[in-house]
Amino acid sequence: MIINAMNEQECRDFLLRGSIGRLACCLDGQPYVVPVYFAYEPDYIYVLSTLGQKIKWMRINPKVCMQVDEIASQSRWESVVVNGTYEELPEPQYAAERTHARTLLQKQYRWWLNALAERQAKTDEAMIEPLFFRIHTSSITGLRAEDD
Amino acid sequence: MIINAMNEQECRDFLLRGSIGRLACCLDGQPYVVPVYFAYEPDYIYVLSTLGQKIKWMRINPKVCMQVDEIASQSRWESVVVNGTYEELPEPQYAAERTHARTLLQKQYRWWLNALAERQAKTDEAMIEPLFFRIHTSSITGLRAEDD
Repeated sequence: MIINAMNEQECRDFLLRGSIGRLACCLDGQPYVVPVYFAYEPDYIYVLSTLGQKIKWMRINPKVCMQVDEIASQSRWESVVVNGTYEELPEPQYAAERTHARTLLQKQYRWWLNALAERQAKTDEAMIEPLFFRIHTSSITGLRAEDD
Repeated sequence: MIINAMNEQECRDFLLRGSIGRLACCLDGQPYVVPVYFAYEPDYIYVLSTLGQKIKWMRINPKVCMQVDEIASQSRWESVVVNGTYEELPEPQYAAERTHARTLLQKQYRWWLNALAERQAKTDEAMIEPLFFRIHTSSITGLRAEDD
């Protein structure tokens, strides 16, 4: 197995193909990591989410790290790590950015709305509003392992 | 889709089946997350690694978070999040724990040694010593999404 650094263009191409990442944030020295659906375009990563611990933490400390990988086997994998800054996209100031995020995450967003509608019809629960945010990427690095 | 919390036993069973996790640590308010191979047994997660940024950071701030998931589809997945404390297992003080870790991570360890030996034979590079550490788990929570 050889492990090589991916160059920036390779990392970007990799992120363009990806859709699931693991997003880490931290507060008071305690890290927290959860899976998210994302869409990448230079120099932002757009994410669809619900309110929860990660959002509360990122509102206080916007420094984040996202990791995306494709692991074919122990000796064939790619892993890209992105550092960046959390930026929420609330209405109405970020209307254009929200529309853009919705377009990029169209598949996930539609699926989300359908899943919610179905569930509401059955349970009469209140609508959970999805929340959009983006990560302004500051560094992107990657490693690729291949068989010799 | 219904999302339910997994109880502690379900989370533990899930970790026993898993082998790849995403480990997050942080330093000075900056999180960092990378994939790792692990083996779980109550109340520790054993990891095989090489020296790198995560080890340097965890030596300074031992608070970590590891996330493990199985994502079958957007509406069928399980995700477990573990908080805990980093504990390195250096020679000679931790000889017994290292032996134990090596046994638990036997498959990965053997594979690792073989991959290194092959590579050394070809490239005459210096041996990279694998490093064992464990995470003392302090909390384990999980979510499971299923179709209605």
